[in-house]
Amino acid sequence: MTLSEAEVIEAIRTVSPARADVIRGIGDDGAVLEPPPGLQLVSVLDTLNEGVHFPAGTEPAAVGHRALAVNLSDLAAMGAEPAWAELSLSLPVPDRDWVRGFAGGLGELAKRWHVAIVGGDTVEGPLSISVHLTGFVHPGRALTRDGARPGDVVFVTGAPGEAMAGLGLLRSGAPGSRLIERFLWPEPRVAEGQALAGLATAAIDLSDGLATDAGRIAAASGARIVIEADDLPVAPELVGLFGESMSIDAIIAGGDDYELCFTTTPERKADLLAVARHWRCALSRIGRVERGGGVGFEKGGRPFVPDLSRSWSHFSGGGA
Amino acid sequence: MTLSEAEVIEAIRTVSPARADVIRGIGDDGAVLEPPPGLQLVSVLDTLNEGVHFPAGTEPAAVGHRALAVNLSDLAAMGAEPAWAELSLSLPVPDRDWVRGFAGGLGELAKRWHVAIVGGDTVEGPLSISVHLTGFVHPGRALTRDGARPGDVVFVTGAPGEAMAGLGLLRSGAPGSRLIERFLWPEPRVAEGQALAGLATAAIDLSDGLATDAGRIAAASGARIVIEADDLPVAPELVGLFGESMSIDAIIAGGDDYELCFTTTPERKADLLAVARHWRCALSRIGRVERGGGVGFEKGGRPFVPDLSRSWSHFSGGGA
Repeated sequence: MTLSEAEVIEAIRTVSPARADVIRGIGDDGAVLEPPPGLQLVSVLDTLNEGVHFPAGTEPAAVGHRALAVNLSDLAAMGAEPAWAELSLSLPVPDRDWVRGFAGGLGELAKRWHVAIVGGDTVEGPLSISVHLTGFVHPGRALTRDGARPGDVVFVTGAPGEAMAGLGLLRSGAPGSRLIERFLWPEPRVAEGQALAGLATAAIDLSDGLATDAGRIAAASGARIVIEADDLPVAPELVGLFGESMSIDAIIAGGDDYELCFTTTPERKADLLAVARHWRCALSRIGRVERGGGVGFEKGGRPFVPDLSRSWSHFSGGGA
Repeated sequence: MTLSEAEVIEAIRTVSPARADVIRGIGDDGAVLEPPPGLQLVSVLDTLNEGVHFPAGTEPAAVGHRALAVNLSDLAAMGAEPAWAELSLSLPVPDRDWVRGFAGGLGELAKRWHVAIVGGDTVEGPLSISVHLTGFVHPGRALTRDGARPGDVVFVTGAPGEAMAGLGLLRSGAPGSRLIERFLWPEPRVAEGQALAGLATAAIDLSDGLATDAGRIAAASGARIVIEADDLPVAPELVGLFGESMSIDAIIAGGDDYELCFTTTPERKADLLAVARHWRCALSRIGRVERGGGVGFEKGGRPFVPDLSRSWSHFSGGGA
């Protein structure tokens, strides 16, 4: 059964939490919003295309979750508190069950972080979802990529590499596992990112893999990041499936992790660990910042060259 | 020649005007923005898909112009002053000439309205452009769709119907004309919309045609709108090409006009006309608001049923 444009919009509207700072939400030419006095805004826009950012046929609730999660992850990397989302939904056919599933996955994550869906667009076209998200941050406290300094230490939240392994298992038709869930239902580190504002010197979220994204901090900061492979958080499950060496490569090459990679000064490390005791994810010190540029890797105290060409295809037995 | 993702982003970054309220623009996980104290925000997000919202092969500068224009038009319909844009660009192949042309068309319109392009996303996929735009409005002055009251008068800016006729000529391969330019280079009524804040009782921008969009004001306001066909602004050029009857249908069915349709009280009409003397587009009184619902049409003082099934295909000699 297909829905009209009005019914699609209604399906989205009904899953949105209410917020007092939304003066006008869905239903006019634009949303009218009341920004909080004295705060700055952080603004992000990300698009997911079927077959590029998620496999064709992915369950609609997971697509809805992902569309908001990747944007929440960007806000987390800026240390911002999420507030308002706009959704543009491009659909070949507005199938009722698909739209309801999508709205359900989107709405559940929106409720968890108190994000109001205030507007957007519904258009005909190949399956594609764009979400714009606005958050708040205290002036001067936004986390950026350019503040890492030689002597800083490098941390990562959670378990990077698992999503890529999960995508590989998914594509190979392997039975459902925790790793596949990790790919399908990424958990943006929203609370952790906000806690890092004022503590981290630089931060980024891991969407393209640890090596690539840590390299972005290094480039923006004009410094070198050295990843110490022995300190990477390697899940026993990953090692059991793929062996230790390939697991470390997965963590470094990764992708779709939506963990936070950040730097801080040695002096702030105690404060950081105190804060992180309340987190629901692991926190691992994985390296250091030095003079120079780029990203280097060490293992057993010696330089080490990971196989960055490894991608999900290695985990699914090949084939794109 | 194809561009890397970094080169695409750089091509967009270089055409963006600078603004003092952009603390961090393109280049981090999100933009950091300083909202003006005491103002509300108006937020819009629109997506254009190739083959749906513009014909395949449309010159890239016109696509860039359009992607921002449709969002500027939404802000105009809210009476807001545009400020910050985010762009998500989905491209099958990042061809250098296409990207430069697109950025040129986008940037020229952005400069005209002092809109900074502060962030976004570049992804692989079918050609599709999403633009999010934020504007400012004084509290309580945003134009909405729900304020039309019986006794109000209905106005329209510029010349609706011309864009639809132009699209028809374009698809039929007719030689370039002013009407084709009207479709390819819509002129959002940004200054006019801002001037209407405080003057209009309800407003909408014409993207889906006068009948449909006036119907949205009627539905939101709980009133009936009567369009007086004799007062519609019919360009002699349109009549010369298609005859008077079909021209009136084009104005009513329309689409892609990006003119403003709005209502105001008879008492404010003099103020409105005084303000409109400075406008660069025509202003036409085209009807009235009554008790009831829906949209009606009159011609020579008698009810009239336009052919709303007319679309560009009628103007191009048929065929979708």
